[in-house]
Amino acid sequence: MMICKVIGNVWATRKEDTLSGLKLMVVQRLDVANKSGEEIFVAVDCVGAGIGDEVLVTTGSSARKALDNQEAPVDASIVGIIDEVQAQISEISSDAVSGQDKD
Amino acid sequence: MMICKVIGNVWATRKEDTLSGLKLMVVQRLDVANKSGEEIFVAVDCVGAGIGDEVLVTTGSSARKALDNQEAPVDASIVGIIDEVQAQISEISSDAVSGQDKD
Amino acid sequence: MMICKVIGNVWATRKEDTLSGLKLMVVQRLDVANKSGEEIFVAVDCVGAGIGDEVLVTTGSSARKALDNQEAPVDASIVGIIDEVQAQISEISSDAVSGQDKD
Amino acid sequence: MMICKVIGNVWATRKEDTLSGLKLMVVQRLDVANKSGEEIFVAVDCVGAGIGDEVLVTTGSSARKALDNQEAPVDASIVGIIDEVQAQISEISSDAVSGQDKD
Amino acid sequence: MMICKVIGNVWATRKEDTLSGLKLMVVQRLDVANKSGEEIFVAVDCVGAGIGDEVLVTTGSSARKALDNQEAPVDASIVGIIDEVQAQISEISSDAVSGQDKD
Repeated sequence: MMICKVIGNVWATRKEDTLSGLKLMVVQRLDVANKSGEEIFVAVDCVGAGIGDEVLVTTGSSARKALDNQEAPVDASIVGIIDEVQAQISEISSDAVSGQDKD
Repeated sequence: MMICKVIGNVWATRKEDTLSGLKLMVVQRLDVANKSGEEIFVAVDCVGAGIGDEVLVTTGSSARKALDNQEAPVDASIVGIIDEVQAQISEISSDAVSGQDKD
Repeated sequence: MMICKVIGNVWATRKEDTLSGLKLMVVQRLDVANKSGEEIFVAVDCVGAGIGDEVLVTTGSSARKALDNQEAPVDASIVGIIDEVQAQISEISSDAVSGQDKD
Repeated sequence: MMICKVIGNVWATRKEDTLSGLKLMVVQRLDVANKSGEEIFVAVDCVGAGIGDEVLVTTGSSARKALDNQEAPVDASIVGIIDEVQAQISEISSDAVSGQDKD
Repeated sequence: MMICKVIGNVWATRKEDTLSGLKLMVVQRLDVANKSGEEIFVAVDCVGAGIGDEVLVTTGSSARKALDNQEAPVDASIVGIIDEVQAQISEISSDAVSGQDKD
């Protein structure tokens, strides 16, 4: 799941019938370690998220598992509202995947 | 779902039988926050989109959920025509995923 | 679907049984708007494509929908030979996804 | 599967019911050869991993195969704790995919 | 499918039960045309590949189709050992996707 921030809404009157009633929100990925990771996309809100919330977003076919109607053409869903993240970003060294014994 | 713009059409006489009758459109992703995000690809139009429209595009296996024939080899579908986007792009700080308490 | 060019062939005598008889072609993505988009990979030809042809390539689970044997471990299929593309690449402005009214 | 390092935890009180009881961990991809590969995301721990462990992470629909409840909206799972990696990163030359005979 | 080189092994004593007995190999993508394409990941060997071999790797849900147990949480499989690649990398011009007639 990606750590994202809800940054807005999107409206689409003309859309697939199975998308009717779903709340579409604009989210931005939060990932300082990934140079191309701050992508913006649209996810269906399944947990009552609001603008400014940090959220967990599931993508791909798994996103449909969060919907009441799993036949809707949805590839991204907000599945949790983040209370807290505790993490320490690693410095990646070339040793990491090049042959050192790790036990 | 990606926010894209319909930028053209593509014609292919010789193609998989199950693609016959589908309208293939060239779309370009709109994502200013993602340095490699302005990719161009082909999506099946399911909602009557026209060139210049901003649209929602679903990718992967979920794209097939928008088709009448879900057995067609399609990995991208236009599922909505965007009326309006209201969003504010975040400045991503390194605090975002590195250990601050967020409640 | 990606717009790709067929640039070669690949031979593999030792392979999964279900890949036997499939024509494996090397394709290169054509995408001038995506800085990392010119990737090269291998796709199964389902439409009689030849080297130099511009083609539509479907990836992911949808790629299997183009095969006679959908149990083969295939994640990319050539599903159409392109006759013509008519498209105009957009200049992406920061307005595109940041809060302007679009109707 | 990606080689990742467990770098933290994430808490979300409000979430999809099917995510309850799952341990959500923040992981960072270890990949020195991929310029944009050090991405950070959240995976469900299925093997008792701890912070600092190097782990194998499966993504996409396959991630659900590691869960007791395969209907949960999960797209990344920790499926192994790495004891040791022995690998030698290649220098990629332009010969690699451009027409040399390789036997 | 990606063209990869087998560059090593990975050991994980503690792992999902369904991964037991599978041979996990470290592979590196060979793709000179893709600036971020030399990524390193772990794939299950299904064809008896050895270190130094150039191989075809299938990813995503299709990777499971190469396994005896398709319920294992696997998202990358080695499905062929490459004998030979014959390909000519294209120079991508901006004409490629911007409106020229191509027949």
